[in-house]
Amino acid sequence: MNSNTSTQPVAPPTYLAQYAQTRKRTVSICAPLETEDYVVQPVEFVSPPKWHLGHTTWFFETFILKPHLPEYEEFNPQYNFVFNSYYEAVGARVVRTDRGNLSRPTVTDIYQYRHHVDEAMALLLSYPHLPKEIEELVTLGLNHEEQHQELLLTDIKYILGHNPLLPPYNHSYPTAEASLNQESYIKMPADLYEIGYKGNAFYFDNEKGRHQVYLGAYELCTQLVSTAAYLEFMEAGGYKDHKYWHADGWEWVKNNQQEAPLYWHKINKEWHHYTLRGLEKINPTEPVTHVSWYEAAAFAAWKGQRLPTEFEWEAAAPKLNWGQRWEWTESAYLPYPNYIKAPGALGEYNGKFMINQMVLRGASDFTPPNHSRLTYRNFFQPVMQWQLTGIRLAK
Amino acid sequence: MNSNTSTQPVAPPTYLAQYAQTRKRTVSICAPLETEDYVVQPVEFVSPPKWHLGHTTWFFETFILKPHLPEYEEFNPQYNFVFNSYYEAVGARVVRTDRGNLSRPTVTDIYQYRHHVDEAMALLLSYPHLPKEIEELVTLGLNHEEQHQELLLTDIKYILGHNPLLPPYNHSYPTAEASLNQESYIKMPADLYEIGYKGNAFYFDNEKGRHQVYLGAYELCTQLVSTAAYLEFMEAGGYKDHKYWHADGWEWVKNNQQEAPLYWHKINKEWHHYTLRGLEKINPTEPVTHVSWYEAAAFAAWKGQRLPTEFEWEAAAPKLNWGQRWEWTESAYLPYPNYIKAPGALGEYNGKFMINQMVLRGASDFTPPNHSRLTYRNFFQPVMQWQLTGIRLAK
Amino acid sequence: MNSNTSTQPVAPPTYLAQYAQTRKRTVSICAPLETEDYVVQPVEFVSPPKWHLGHTTWFFETFILKPHLPEYEEFNPQYNFVFNSYYEAVGARVVRTDRGNLSRPTVTDIYQYRHHVDEAMALLLSYPHLPKEIEELVTLGLNHEEQHQELLLTDIKYILGHNPLLPPYNHSYPTAEASLNQESYIKMPADLYEIGYKGNAFYFDNEKGRHQVYLGAYELCTQLVSTAAYLEFMEAGGYKDHKYWHADGWEWVKNNQQEAPLYWHKINKEWHHYTLRGLEKINPTEPVTHVSWYEAAAFAAWKGQRLPTEFEWEAAAPKLNWGQRWEWTESAYLPYPNYIKAPGALGEYNGKFMINQMVLRGASDFTPPNHSRLTYRNFFQPVMQWQLTGIRLAK
Amino acid sequence: MNSNTSTQPVAPPTYLAQYAQTRKRTVSICAPLETEDYVVQPVEFVSPPKWHLGHTTWFFETFILKPHLPEYEEFNPQYNFVFNSYYEAVGARVVRTDRGNLSRPTVTDIYQYRHHVDEAMALLLSYPHLPKEIEELVTLGLNHEEQHQELLLTDIKYILGHNPLLPPYNHSYPTAEASLNQESYIKMPADLYEIGYKGNAFYFDNEKGRHQVYLGAYELCTQLVSTAAYLEFMEAGGYKDHKYWHADGWEWVKNNQQEAPLYWHKINKEWHHYTLRGLEKINPTEPVTHVSWYEAAAFAAWKGQRLPTEFEWEAAAPKLNWGQRWEWTESAYLPYPNYIKAPGALGEYNGKFMINQMVLRGASDFTPPNHSRLTYRNFFQPVMQWQLTGIRLAK
Repeated sequence: MNSNTSTQPVAPPTYLAQYAQTRKRTVSICAPLETEDYVVQPVEFVSPPKWHLGHTTWFFETFILKPHLPEYEEFNPQYNFVFNSYYEAVGARVVRTDRGNLSRPTVTDIYQYRHHVDEAMALLLSYPHLPKEIEELVTLGLNHEEQHQELLLTDIKYILGHNPLLPPYNHSYPTAEASLNQESYIKMPADLYEIGYKGNAFYFDNEKGRHQVYLGAYELCTQLVSTAAYLEFMEAGGYKDHKYWHADGWEWVKNNQQEAPLYWHKINKEWHHYTLRGLEKINPTEPVTHVSWYEAAAFAAWKGQRLPTEFEWEAAAPKLNWGQRWEWTESAYLPYPNYIKAPGALGEYNGKFMINQMVLRGASDFTPPNHSRLTYRNFFQPVMQWQLTGIRLAK
Repeated sequence: MNSNTSTQPVAPPTYLAQYAQTRKRTVSICAPLETEDYVVQPVEFVSPPKWHLGHTTWFFETFILKPHLPEYEEFNPQYNFVFNSYYEAVGARVVRTDRGNLSRPTVTDIYQYRHHVDEAMALLLSYPHLPKEIEELVTLGLNHEEQHQELLLTDIKYILGHNPLLPPYNHSYPTAEASLNQESYIKMPADLYEIGYKGNAFYFDNEKGRHQVYLGAYELCTQLVSTAAYLEFMEAGGYKDHKYWHADGWEWVKNNQQEAPLYWHKINKEWHHYTLRGLEKINPTEPVTHVSWYEAAAFAAWKGQRLPTEFEWEAAAPKLNWGQRWEWTESAYLPYPNYIKAPGALGEYNGKFMINQMVLRGASDFTPPNHSRLTYRNFFQPVMQWQLTGIRLAK
Repeated sequence: MNSNTSTQPVAPPTYLAQYAQTRKRTVSICAPLETEDYVVQPVEFVSPPKWHLGHTTWFFETFILKPHLPEYEEFNPQYNFVFNSYYEAVGARVVRTDRGNLSRPTVTDIYQYRHHVDEAMALLLSYPHLPKEIEELVTLGLNHEEQHQELLLTDIKYILGHNPLLPPYNHSYPTAEASLNQESYIKMPADLYEIGYKGNAFYFDNEKGRHQVYLGAYELCTQLVSTAAYLEFMEAGGYKDHKYWHADGWEWVKNNQQEAPLYWHKINKEWHHYTLRGLEKINPTEPVTHVSWYEAAAFAAWKGQRLPTEFEWEAAAPKLNWGQRWEWTESAYLPYPNYIKAPGALGEYNGKFMINQMVLRGASDFTPPNHSRLTYRNFFQPVMQWQLTGIRLAK
Repeated sequence: MNSNTSTQPVAPPTYLAQYAQTRKRTVSICAPLETEDYVVQPVEFVSPPKWHLGHTTWFFETFILKPHLPEYEEFNPQYNFVFNSYYEAVGARVVRTDRGNLSRPTVTDIYQYRHHVDEAMALLLSYPHLPKEIEELVTLGLNHEEQHQELLLTDIKYILGHNPLLPPYNHSYPTAEASLNQESYIKMPADLYEIGYKGNAFYFDNEKGRHQVYLGAYELCTQLVSTAAYLEFMEAGGYKDHKYWHADGWEWVKNNQQEAPLYWHKINKEWHHYTLRGLEKINPTEPVTHVSWYEAAAFAAWKGQRLPTEFEWEAAAPKLNWGQRWEWTESAYLPYPNYIKAPGALGEYNGKFMINQMVLRGASDFTPPNHSRLTYRNFFQPVMQWQLTGIRLAK
């Protein structure tokens, strides 16, 4: 989908190496899990880890090996049904809510499936003259797998963080850098800004279509909102006063008796939160996370400020400290001018989700290295808290 | 909220005349109804006509009479509870789903309530020197009532159109002008366009903040999509092929077994639709209506085109034929730059809905005269079909 | 609806007189209603009063006039669809939840329908030699209408008692006789008792099949449980201790936050309840009412006693003071030995409900005169509170 | 889990041997499972196998070891929360629907828990003079575990039988004896029969209270309804004609598009069903199974017959061929005369379920040896199909 026009002759080994490295990282994310942790689906939007392992493998089997490696033998024809996702063009989907009911294929079966596909991919990627189409599909497949690496971490956190035993994932999982001590605002002048992907590396179709956007003068906070600041909002009754909330957000607060970000627990009058290291006291200087868009917008309203648009963010990002948290924006996830869905199953990749979701910019601690960039558009429904979401203020 | 700086001395009578005329029009919309038609609420998003009658009256009582007419006697203190809407700042709301269960106050009670408030308003509006604040509130109240006039008509259509007897509202209700014979595209050049309200008449807070938007070159169809064209889409299997649909739209189609716009019935192999005149054969040359945003977007995808953004629409509108149907746009309903919620209860008017909704532009047959304008921003959830919604194509 | 004042003791005039009297009583029950009260359905198990008026009329039209009066002209063929109930054999049903959405036919339409059918029935019932089959159908139709008279009162109470204005039905509606001052137990010896209808008057098919039931020795309280006694249970924490409750009952208490019988409101620390006269303080000496089977069973468990079986009740009833409240029994609603469903649509009358319901014996203040008897079997799901249900203890 | 091979006939070794044997059988039922199969809960009424393993162990820990073995060390205090069931008196319950979301404790953890408890129980049961109270609790615990053995098999069948891969549990699992070739009816005279448990062995509290029941003359079929006979009902349109169904049953058929017993699949026009051996063609001579009470009652109505009451069954059982299938009866699950709940947590054992369920008599292939008897009362809601339920006709 992008063209890599490098003239160096080392390209084919590079694809194989990239493939091996990415695939290995997925497995290493799962290393601390018990077999049982791979299976469960505590809520519809979380997928069982074993499904992620199978689905990312199915992607290579379906879009690369079956059409392009003639001697490839399908591992198990029923896996197409089990590990398909939202790609309606390929076949019937497993209803998402059913994923947590499937004890088979077992975790061992799925690791064998990965091994089977990895061996075939190694064979294919060793070809001396890899067609450009395959190169592009491999790159897409690896970026797809990187997206699932992040989902794996968020889903694992949800699974363990909703177990009454609150088991740690990794006792020595690193803490987020906590340096939110001084906040200032950068001023951006009114201007026409260039928005969208430019360059020769990989990008998703939703970033494509570099175009001009006119922005009035604005200011963005250089720091994300801290846990301490958010706690102030809570203690000021932020969850009890409808005037800070959108109508849908207020319904959500009342229906779910929301009173704190996800994973927060008040124990003996002190706030704790579940982290991948287990239960810990909250850290006031850390950026607040696991907030929904509704919470982000309510906090901003309480401050008399607002969330930035995705265009304001992209224009100012080179001057910002970003990357620890995904940042909710005030932009709905909609197509850029001249956006065109690719034909066929891959064409469904992003376009079909362009309704009812809000854009997030930046990256989080869970984002794979090099997976994010200034033009990357992440997107979730405004109710979602289980990603590492944070808040940046604009005015 | 707007300033009427006319120097003519006839202003006060004008307010009273405007008031009387608008209030009378509401009553005349209800004239063909049976008492029973005022009561029912067949679905959550439809309000019983008697609720509309009471709620618009409550607005004048609560925001104008009680604070500004010292000798005013509240008609019934419990009505504040019954006829409040979404104005959280004023008091507890009646859950919307309950509105259809309330046989009391009766229709007669509510007409007495209107009469009581109208007499008090007449007194107030006869004051020789009406403070500007009251003038603004009256104007807002009348615009609010005009919005409810349109909702009254759409809700009445829904109530009668979902009754198994399919009773007509008015046998001689005029048909929409049907002149969609020749379609062409107007070309708009790339440019910075001015968007948002400019002028001295009334406008809603969501139109405020005139600002520049840069648009690349685009083309808009001069005509709305006809019923005949939409029927082609249906007959080409448009409702059966997921590839034209957004993911959420496809779920909606499948969960609700959608296969046509709202009010369409296939009788003896011929498509009919319910109109305010009763059941009629569909008219191929009329603009298609009662489509959801999902249907509008799917039709556009099938055509290889797209919906316009609200900015493209506003910039081109002076050159378009518009006004028979609300037109779905590809813009989410979000605040304009520098949008600020007004303080207090009235501040909730529009801002709290700025999430999960899509913008519609134009006006429909049900829109009160002079209620719409180039900068007017209507908004509904993408699933909604019960407004007179239509489709305009862009490319 | 005419009255036949003939003094002759012959049968045909008697049927006509009975018909006129019963039909008139239905109309008189509705006399205090506003038009709007006829329309609403605040909950699925309540039917709008106008539906009761239409449905009881439809019964005579469908089962008597159309098959037996050759010159009869159907009032409106669509009414068969609108006013059919659970009689699957006759045609498609209106989903019960939809009944409250139907503004048409209007109340006036339905009274005209009643008049049309009453005139035709008067003609038929004036025949000199009425076939026995018709006599039986008329009797069944009138008993059916009497059942709906009781439902009309309970449904009207529910509609008005759930309106925030709590409007009275009739300011001078008589209070239940309140004489629960002294309770004693009657002892019944172990024996074979005869159960089921015996005689020549009307009975429902579910009472048929007089048969022997062996009962061990038991005691029944001569009085129903008083409001004072029930209040003691409430104040002793009865709604907060699962040990008195069946598992399903405890779920019901928790899911619905039950803490009192239906219609009870605590106002300024004093318990009130809605009656047909409006809101009143509870009366401690009155039999408690509007309790579910779960509440009745929990109260009995708290007392260390139990509810009687329907057989114990029937055997002891001649010695009991009964008739103010329906009495929950510990018997499930199941067929008597040799119960046979009548063929055809009328055969569905009772048998199809013989699962998931509990038997109530006795009669209530809302039961039409002469409609109840020792062998009468009323039945509702254990969750229901909107009938005039009470509690009698056994041990 | 050790075996006590003492040859002495004294009581304590016998309890220890019984304990060891029963506990071992539970483990052997799980032997064919993969770790993942222990975890999932595809529907609310099915529990994950690992929950059954933990819960039965928790029973011994909570009711025997903690109160009666002073030196006992609780394995993990949080397990009380995780493995508690419906015993409200002991503590907060895990909501049943959550059981399938718990990846921890792991299967290994739970087997260690079993081992820990088994060792402590072995110690306790080796005491020379075991108090009678402990003997009774052990017997109750083992009968409780036997009930869960049957549930384990039905739940495992559900889990594997709802996996798209339809994996077999055990390729050589024995088939049900299939000898339904000739049916006849035994005649039972009208009489007073003795009902309820008599003897000195173990029984559940719901069987207690032997009492007389008068039964009119009746006939019971000596054979259960065969698969062939049920197929006739299906082919005669039994699932399409409401007249055979109770109202609630007909709702169930329509809402769930029921057209066959559970586990039946039509493949290439031939009916197959999932068995513990995997997918097989149905066997016409086998008793039909996996039918709900609604289906059993509808089949009987189609035949012009009925289901027996539990009393008719118990009185005739010595003359019947029974034990392959649980048999739905026409009796609701209600207390016998003089039924008294035991005080404390164990008192909740059966009594709290005595509403909204129907009695089944007999035993199934999955019932542990010696676990059923003539007076045993099994009970489930009428909608349930996942037990090995069958049909016997009465007239």
